[in-house]
Amino acid sequence: MDNFEKLVKKSIDKFKMLNKDEKILVSVSGGKDSHAAAYVLNKLGYNIELFHINLGIKNFSDISLEKVKELSNILEVPLHIVNLKDITGKTIEDLKRKHCSICGITKRYLMNKFGYENNFDVIVTGHNLDDEVSFLLNNLLNWSVRYLAKHFPVLPAHDKFLKKVKIFYEIEEDLILKYAVKNNIPFTTAKCKFAKDAITLKHRAYLNELEKERKNIKKQFLYGYLKYRHLFDIEEDFQFRECEICGMTSAGKICSFCRVWKLYKKSKYKN
Amino acid sequence: MDNFEKLVKKSIDKFKMLNKDEKILVSVSGGKDSHAAAYVLNKLGYNIELFHINLGIKNFSDISLEKVKELSNILEVPLHIVNLKDITGKTIEDLKRKHCSICGITKRYLMNKFGYENNFDVIVTGHNLDDEVSFLLNNLLNWSVRYLAKHFPVLPAHDKFLKKVKIFYEIEEDLILKYAVKNNIPFTTAKCKFAKDAITLKHRAYLNELEKERKNIKKQFLYGYLKYRHLFDIEEDFQFRECEICGMTSAGKICSFCRVWKLYKKSKYKN
Repeated sequence: MDNFEKLVKKSIDKFKMLNKDEKILVSVSGGKDSHAAAYVLNKLGYNIELFHINLGIKNFSDISLEKVKELSNILEVPLHIVNLKDITGKTIEDLKRKHCSICGITKRYLMNKFGYENNFDVIVTGHNLDDEVSFLLNNLLNWSVRYLAKHFPVLPAHDKFLKKVKIFYEIEEDLILKYAVKNNIPFTTAKCKFAKDAITLKHRAYLNELEKERKNIKKQFLYGYLKYRHLFDIEEDFQFRECEICGMTSAGKICSFCRVWKLYKKSKYKN
Repeated sequence: MDNFEKLVKKSIDKFKMLNKDEKILVSVSGGKDSHAAAYVLNKLGYNIELFHINLGIKNFSDISLEKVKELSNILEVPLHIVNLKDITGKTIEDLKRKHCSICGITKRYLMNKFGYENNFDVIVTGHNLDDEVSFLLNNLLNWSVRYLAKHFPVLPAHDKFLKKVKIFYEIEEDLILKYAVKNNIPFTTAKCKFAKDAITLKHRAYLNELEKERKNIKKQFLYGYLKYRHLFDIEEDFQFRECEICGMTSAGKICSFCRVWKLYKKSKYKN
């Protein structure tokens, strides 16, 4: 086991992220992080399958799909593909306002629904330390207290929400990239053409600028947060219900996926 | 009353910062913020006197002192000057490590001691919105929870600590500069030569960069904080005591001022 794999294993154990008897669905995007996540979990002997959403973003989605298929072939694990267009009748290209938050809602919903309906125990995503600290900074600048309680590598299952795990929560992006290159893991470096103005990308760059002057500032920020995360745990016990359109677990009458994709009248996806 | 003065008056009333019968000591540095604070309070009819610390930083302190004297003449209010060298036998120039935090400790201590010994009710400083949000960001990145509870425009008096007020807490630096220029308030734009690497200066620049894209992000950050500030109020009731060297209120046996300036053995300043 190389150093990176030891590091990941240590982190999985520390946060009690995964068990060997769990059926794990790894959400793979085509990029280095999720591909390295699948690769290292497979190598560590976890029981994984791959899940990919084709968002229909021109060129980007085609290249991503190709890399996901390559990964599946190399790892010899099943790959499940869902096409956004088959479900909503639309792709991201068809939206007037293409905002990163819409892809976030869409991906979280579809991977959860697929995992839930196919009896997976847990969903793993490739979010890394750099993702976490930039989201954390953004939620602090906005005082999004509801989200501030939830920056944790393991979110337990409830209702129809599967358990979710970020195995690279405390692993820096640089290390993941090195591991992916060293092991010839197939991935694309293509960036989504709509993501360029995302404010979290600015935060990421700024935190890396600070890191150059103050080594470990990103980790200290994250570990300090973990120490004080409980301070944000102030929401009264929230009553979830079933979305009136799709039946999945929802905060409101209609879940954010059905709202974003205007599935009010269609009952297409319900069946 | 011009718009700026109305804005400041509104803020003073909103946070119940000051009363007309209080004896107010305004800590003036030579810069636009504290000078505008003294100017506007004087114009609004508050009972103020000025306080300045000569830190002995070459050129910078001389220029600052000159501007402070000009301000005192224009406003026709008393100016009290304390020379750091008279008290500690040293200036900032004599320190091996010239760190902004040392000036912070020094200025807070000396203005409080002077105000306390001369029967002032309250100390006003020129800290503005831009100062507050950059300090706030820094304390969040470091999870300095002890300080995170204290970003408030009014800190009440306790023991030998006077009440402290930041009248420009929610006023942007730009507005203060415009007001100072419009009213020919004397001030220097000289920057302390030792401050250039302060990380809060980086935060300030970054927050202004974000502000360009998202108008009001700084104010939203500050007001969101005010809404959730109570979450950080987790310190057990702290027992303050008297510093064994100088007798002022202190968290430990020896206060940070006496520690920083190594006044362990001298009893010079006690009398």
